[in-house]
Formats: sequence, C-alpha cells, structure tokens
Amino acid sequence: MDLLFLGTGAGVPAKHRNVTAVALQMLQERGATWLFDCGEATQHQILHTSIRPRRIEKIFITHLHGDHIYGLPGLLGSRSFQGGETPLTVYGPKGLKEFIEVTLSVSQTHLQYRLDIVEIEEGVIFSDHQFQVECLRLEHGIPSYGFRIVERDLPGELLVEKLKNDQIPPGPLYQRLKNGEAVTLPDGRVVNGNDYVGEPKKGKIVAILGDTRVCVNSLTLAKDADVFVHESTFSGEEEEMAYSYFHSTATQAARIAKDAGAKKLILTHISSRYQKNEADLLAEQARSIFPCTELADDFKQFFVDR
Amino acid sequence: MDLLFLGTGAGVPAKHRNVTAVALQMLQERGATWLFDCGEATQHQILHTSIRPRRIEKIFITHLHGDHIYGLPGLLGSRSFQGGETPLTVYGPKGLKEFIEVTLSVSQTHLQYRLDIVEIEEGVIFSDHQFQVECLRLEHGIPSYGFRIVERDLPGELLVEKLKNDQIPPGPLYQRLKNGEAVTLPDGRVVNGNDYVGEPKKGKIVAILGDTRVCVNSLTLAKDADVFVHESTFSGEEEEMAYSYFHSTATQAARIAKDAGAKKLILTHISSRYQKNEADLLAEQARSIFPCTELADDFKQFFVDR
Ligand SMILES: [Zn+2]
Ligand SMILES: [Zn+2]
Repeated sequence: MDLLFLGTGAGVPAKHRNVTAVALQMLQERGATWLFDCGEATQHQILHTSIRPRRIEKIFITHLHGDHIYGLPGLLGSRSFQGGETPLTVYGPKGLKEFIEVTLSVSQTHLQYRLDIVEIEEGVIFSDHQFQVECLRLEHGIPSYGFRIVERDLPGELLVEKLKNDQIPPGPLYQRLKNGEAVTLPDGRVVNGNDYVGEPKKGKIVAILGDTRVCVNSLTLAKDADVFVHESTFSGEEEEMAYSYFHSTATQAARIAKDAGAKKLILTHISSRYQKNEADLLAEQARSIFPCTELADDFKQFFVDR
Repeated sequence: MDLLFLGTGAGVPAKHRNVTAVALQMLQERGATWLFDCGEATQHQILHTSIRPRRIEKIFITHLHGDHIYGLPGLLGSRSFQGGETPLTVYGPKGLKEFIEVTLSVSQTHLQYRLDIVEIEEGVIFSDHQFQVECLRLEHGIPSYGFRIVERDLPGELLVEKLKNDQIPPGPLYQRLKNGEAVTLPDGRVVNGNDYVGEPKKGKIVAILGDTRVCVNSLTLAKDADVFVHESTFSGEEEEMAYSYFHSTATQAARIAKDAGAKKLILTHISSRYQKNEADLLAEQARSIFPCTELADDFKQFFVDR
C-alpha cells in the first residue's frame, strides 16, 4: 500500500505542482487504486505513472472546489475510452452528481462501465471484508470532508516452525489450522489452530483530509493513523491568512498530527507562493513540532507501513 | 497574427499531444488572444507559453465533445484568480451555457470579470471594425462548427515620398490626407488624400474547423483562406474508418484546401495511433495533393501572412 501524489498545489496549477489528486495504491491488497480528489489534468499526470485508469476502483472527492474536481469528467471518459469495464464508484459532497451528470451528458460521453455516484454525509461510507472508509466534515466555507481509511486486521501467520516441532505434517490441514479450526491428526491427537497462528497483523490506517481550517474532526480522523495527509497551504507565520481563507498552516497540521498520535504526517496543497526552498521550510516548521513530517511533491511516493 | 497550437491530439491526451486547443494571437492587431477549443489542461499548456489568460478576449468552441471543452471551467476560474478583469465571451453550440454554468456554480467559482456565453447558429457571430467571424455547421454526429475569421482590409499606407515630391509639407494634414480627405494647402492648392494613399492592404483570412467528415461547408469556410486548420484524425488509407467515426483523413483535408484555394493548410487533431514519424507521413500524404501543408504539434507556432 502506498500513496502516490499526482497534484500537490493549491488553487491553480503551477509548472511543478498540479492541482490536487493523490492515489492510494493497493495493488497487492486488492488489485486496485483509489483516488482522492481529481483536479484538472490528473489524467495527464497519470500518463507519467504506472497507474492504469481501469484499475481505479473508487474516487473520493473531499470538496467541490474546481481545483479538486475539474479533472473528473476527463478521467471518467478516458477510463472508458481506454477499455475500462469494471464498475467505478465516486464519493463526494452533494452537488457531485449534478457536476458529473451534466459534464458527461453535455459532452455526450457514454461510459462503457457502471458508474455509481454517492453523495456523502458524515459516517461510514464504505465497508467490505478488507477496508472501511469513514468521513467527517471539516471547516472550509463549503462542505469539505476528511477520509479515514481503515484496513481490517489481517489474520496472523501460520507458525510453521512450531508445527514442525510438534510433528504435525504439512498438508491441507494447515489451511484449516490457519483458519483457527480444531483438527484431528492422523495419529489421533486433536490440535487447536489458534495455538499455531501468530498475532493478528494490525491493519493500516490512512487519513486524507480535504482543505480545512484547524478543526476537532481532523483529530478524530487522524487518531493513531499510520499516514496522515493534511493540507499546508500556508507557512506558520500566516495563521490569520490561513484562517480567513479557510486553510491551515504547516504548524497547525503538525500540532494535529502530534495530538492525534499519528505516525507520519504528509503536507500537501502547497500555495504557489512557496517555491522549492520555501516549501521545504514548511516541512521544517512542521518537523519542529512533529518530527516525522514529509513534504509531498508531484509524483512523490510514500509507502504505508505500520 | 499567428496561431499557437496548444493541443493537437484526438480524443484523449497523450504524452506529446494534448487534447485540442489553438490560440489565434492578435497582440499587434488588438492586444488580444482568441482561443479555439479548450480541452482539459489547456491552462497547463498555457503555463509554458507567453499567453496571458487575462489577454484572452474570446473563446470559440467548435463542438461539445469532452476533448474540446473540459479545460474551460479551469481556464475561466484561473483567469479570474490571476487578476483578469476584462470581459470574456465564449461562443459555442447549444449546451455550452449549461456546461459552464453548472461547472462554475457547483464549484462555487465566482468570476471577477464579465462572462458572456453565446450559443451559436450558422452565420456571422461576431463583427467589429477589425474582424468578422462567421460559422457554418460541419458533419460530426453532434453539432460541430467551423469558424472563418476575416480581418477587414486595412487602409493603404500614406505615400510619403510622393508627398515630398509634390512639396506637401509634413504636419497634421498628413493624417487628414491619410483619411482620404481633400485638403487645402497653405499655398492654396487643393489636394485629394486618395491620391496619396497606397492600395488598401487585404485583411487576412483564417479558417479553423472542428471535428468533421468531408463536407461542403468546409469548402465555403476555407475559400481563399490564408491559413486553413483542418482535422486529420486518420491517414489517407483509413477513409472508411474516418467516415464511420465522423472524422477526416489527411488526404481529404488536402483536397478541400486545394479546391478552396487556401494558401496554407495545417493538419491537427492527430490520432494517438500515429507516433512521431507516422504523423509526418500524414503531412506527406497531404502535400502530394496540396504542397503547402504543415503538421501541427503542441507549441508549434505559425505566422499568418498574406
Ligand atoms: Zn478548496
Ligand atoms: Zn469530436
């Protein structure tokens, strides 16, 4: 599981930072990629990566500002044009459905796959045997959401050495033991699978937030997250400006990461007023509060470890 | 006056050809740039040119397929964000108004300039003291238009040598003579401005067509054009395919240029099936019929001469 940033700028595209989009790649986990936000030219950025649009299974939209959604119609259309046939679900605030339906219908774009559009409210918006996604409202002038993606715990590994030591021969019964069943061996012994399975592996937690001022829901979303993606439109000195534009500073993002007990903070949505070196300074500011801070750049990839 | 191609591909963006947009730069003539079509990431392409979004005075949309309009909301928004305050008019087929209004309103984009949206039908759609723009329907499955931009003839130059020879002294009366007035000189002679003004300079004609099959209106639009921009989605061998997808071949474009008496043909809207060398072959095919053919590439600039 990794995060591949496709756009890390704010408001308007710049030469080296496109408008917002980040891909959560879960190819090993589920053979799929999830996208969070889809600013204009996200499909162009994707051309320079190994992401296949047909593998995009879900798109989560934090809020409906243009720099977060204007790439959506093009990506949806190209996914179809390039042979995507599997269903796709797009989640986002109320208004998303009208945006997608009008842009596709005016342009007479007929998708060759099933598209579901889910207009979200706070709560659990997706759940299956592997993942649960929950969202909460942030504070951005218009409805903006943060997403908390929780991987379910994985069953522990089969303790093969211990099985060998106890002279339990390999075979189909290993799978039954792994499932925690009680099994009668050929020699008559009855053994319990739970005795031969290690600790369950904790699932990973990723929190990806839309544009926002500092708010209490950010803390809830980021609680114990392995990776926490927060906007950092401004530097620490600009708290007033950040507040008046419904954005955050690098310092504020770091405080939330710290208070929430997150393991890693990634700063994104960097204003174009900060060129290369100044953007590094944003990360420095954050690190003085929360050392494990990284600055996102377009095409930068971060692995999600526990 | 020149044409700067911003996107020369067909259908979906490719690494080296973005989807359609071309700028008609008229900085000397009227301090403005006109844009024809606005595929996704046109504003990104503009970042790599000297075009200022605030100088874009008019945008003409040939048809509403996504690869010709998905860059519009972003460009309109960024033009405002970057301080554009002068009015902008967008012309295009019915449905354009809904597209622009819904995309801007869902994203709560509030423009700081006046935006007029004109849904066009065949005929003269714009006319002032400098230029006239006429459009005609093409053949593309959905309504698609071609635009004929006609510069009005410019008044001839003042024949300064002749004035000197006739001992007419320089001064404010030169301007009156240039305007064709009859003027009484200090020495009593009455001279006629028309005798001291050269031939009027013919205005330029540029024809820019949307996606289309071969059709008779293309001939009308391209008649005697100094520059004629025509799609060339397919190579000459693919006439059937071109017909069934409502597109044209390079050969067909060349025949129209020839029959219309155009002076220069520029091929654009090149399918991504043609890589660099094959795209050159399209131009070669066209040249065997119409020698003065050029292949458009992204960021290629063509001067409009008479
Ligand atoms: Zn925003
Ligand atoms: Zn088309």
